[in-house]
Amino acid sequence: MTALLDRLGIALPILQAPMAGVSSPAMAAAVSEAGGLGALGLGAAGVAGAQEMIAHLRKRSDRPFGVNVFVHTPARRDAAREAGWIERWRPEFARFKAEPPARLDEIYTSFAVDDAMLAMLLAERPAVVSFHFGLPDAARIAALRDAGITLLATATNLAEARAAKAAGIDAIIAQGWEAGGHRGSFDPDAPDDRLGTLALVRILARQADIPVIAAGGIMDGAAIDAALALGAAAAQLGTAYVATDESLADPGYRAALAGPAAHHTTMTRVISGRPARCLANRFTAIGADIPAEAIPAYPVAYDLGKALNAAAKAKAEPGFGAQWAGQGAPLARAMPAAALTRMLAGEMRPRPIG
Amino acid sequence: MTALLDRLGIALPILQAPMAGVSSPAMAAAVSEAGGLGALGLGAAGVAGAQEMIAHLRKRSDRPFGVNVFVHTPARRDAAREAGWIERWRPEFARFKAEPPARLDEIYTSFAVDDAMLAMLLAERPAVVSFHFGLPDAARIAALRDAGITLLATATNLAEARAAKAAGIDAIIAQGWEAGGHRGSFDPDAPDDRLGTLALVRILARQADIPVIAAGGIMDGAAIDAALALGAAAAQLGTAYVATDESLADPGYRAALAGPAAHHTTMTRVISGRPARCLANRFTAIGADIPAEAIPAYPVAYDLGKALNAAAKAKAEPGFGAQWAGQGAPLARAMPAAALTRMLAGEMRPRPIG
Repeated sequence: MTALLDRLGIALPILQAPMAGVSSPAMAAAVSEAGGLGALGLGAAGVAGAQEMIAHLRKRSDRPFGVNVFVHTPARRDAAREAGWIERWRPEFARFKAEPPARLDEIYTSFAVDDAMLAMLLAERPAVVSFHFGLPDAARIAALRDAGITLLATATNLAEARAAKAAGIDAIIAQGWEAGGHRGSFDPDAPDDRLGTLALVRILARQADIPVIAAGGIMDGAAIDAALALGAAAAQLGTAYVATDESLADPGYRAALAGPAAHHTTMTRVISGRPARCLANRFTAIGADIPAEAIPAYPVAYDLGKALNAAAKAKAEPGFGAQWAGQGAPLARAMPAAALTRMLAGEMRPRPIG
Repeated sequence: MTALLDRLGIALPILQAPMAGVSSPAMAAAVSEAGGLGALGLGAAGVAGAQEMIAHLRKRSDRPFGVNVFVHTPARRDAAREAGWIERWRPEFARFKAEPPARLDEIYTSFAVDDAMLAMLLAERPAVVSFHFGLPDAARIAALRDAGITLLATATNLAEARAAKAAGIDAIIAQGWEAGGHRGSFDPDAPDDRLGTLALVRILARQADIPVIAAGGIMDGAAIDAALALGAAAAQLGTAYVATDESLADPGYRAALAGPAAHHTTMTRVISGRPARCLANRFTAIGADIPAEAIPAYPVAYDLGKALNAAAKAKAEPGFGAQWAGQGAPLARAMPAAALTRMLAGEMRPRPIG
């Protein structure tokens, strides 16, 4: 356990989940300054935006931090499906006196094919780069490793963890079923065993032969203790940081997280095209009965999802937001990110040294 | 934590899950003799069979033990649905040169309406009675409490836990999404938040104000430590005991649990009529696309499921068994139940006293 923390350059076994669109340089800096590993989600930013976020973070902290990139298989376009998707949601847009987009775009470039992002990361050399949705090719992994960067990858099962180990990844983010936001499965269309955090972390700790960072449902020091008891070297917390002052979550998202909606999250693919855990809201309810075959590929579907949310928000309807949250949502606490990080550490049981 | 163990009369924070059809008096006695709480599943036995099981156990041990009863809403019969169900499976029976049953029966009596079972339990006075699928009425709870019996109830969410507390239950079995066998939801047709064990146990420990016993995916001492870190007073293990010598699991079930199938469990309602986690097998695969509306109520559907398994087994096909298992199945260890109980205790981290 200590070996991985030393490698990551952190004192506390606490990683802030990167959360593209929700985390901020101020959040990441606060977590790193408090002794955890702050992180930026770069998957939704272009290269210039990503580099700017890194610069902002570095103005606030010179401690190690992580960045996360999306390594999804580039979208398989399907004109008929995309056109059908636009028409399916036209009545909802109409409720908000808006038109759906005329066409949908692949709004994010996968790191699997993004040479400019790779070059930027090799120039900036963050302490940690983490991969979500899959692994880049061997050349990209080698280039990042040769630059001295520690590499993490999300796995939702033993096969993904073993693939990551074989590819030279340093540690696994074991993402349990409880986790909020996008499920990191390498193939979103493959059968999913939906392993809960407790079962997944223990199976990987015993069978994957690579350091494990537990993620999914972890909201306080007791749950971090539980993750360590399961054999994890550290825990990654996302939803806990959504509620912090430095989060980019909008007021509707914060209100939902703080209210009774927090008790009901659901795994949905209608918002973005990939399964992701969201606070149950109008968007997830309308989408509940839509078969996966009708939904455009990630992130093409997300182009419409973002437009629909913008139209709804303009009419004061918050229920179409990508209000990602894990099953621990009822335990979220609104406070500054540094204070939360210190509180988490204080809640942990004292551990024997060595 | 110690208060509940004292109440249960056990030294170790380990409960053996009752597992109707899989547990045995020999298993329960072995666990109780080793310092945990052994348990019998009475839900599938008539009153006479249940009393006989208790007598067998008592011949082997005078330590405290538990018994579990099913408190499902008695089945709503639907002749058309049941006839359709029989016809749907006729081709599978034909593959095994067998006929499906001409009609289906409600093969188990719910404890909610079983006065004879109540009278037997009041006469036998096991130390613990646990309820699955719901709660009996106030008079039955009062009668059992007045007999000095400690009462446990399964809950899969905060609302069920609060209902159990309000009804006078002594402690909750917090059954996470990982758990094998029948999901204990009070209403199988209500929306299910599918809370993972880690999230569920922590939410109940912080918000339910009643002692919690963690269940789902717990297979070794490290996972028991994790459950205690989450605030549980004890852990209940089922799948771990399926693999023990005293288990009634048949050879096909044991082979599946010991092989690669253990990595793939699935929540299915085709076998019994209620959602239950099973090793992925031929039955669950064929049933994967059947809508809930087509399936007869529990336990009426189970009448057909058991007949189909019998027909398949007679032709050496093990893939139609109710091979219940939790997501921790890859970590199961075949050994005597007493040895497993002692091993679990030995694997736990030494804990501070008091």
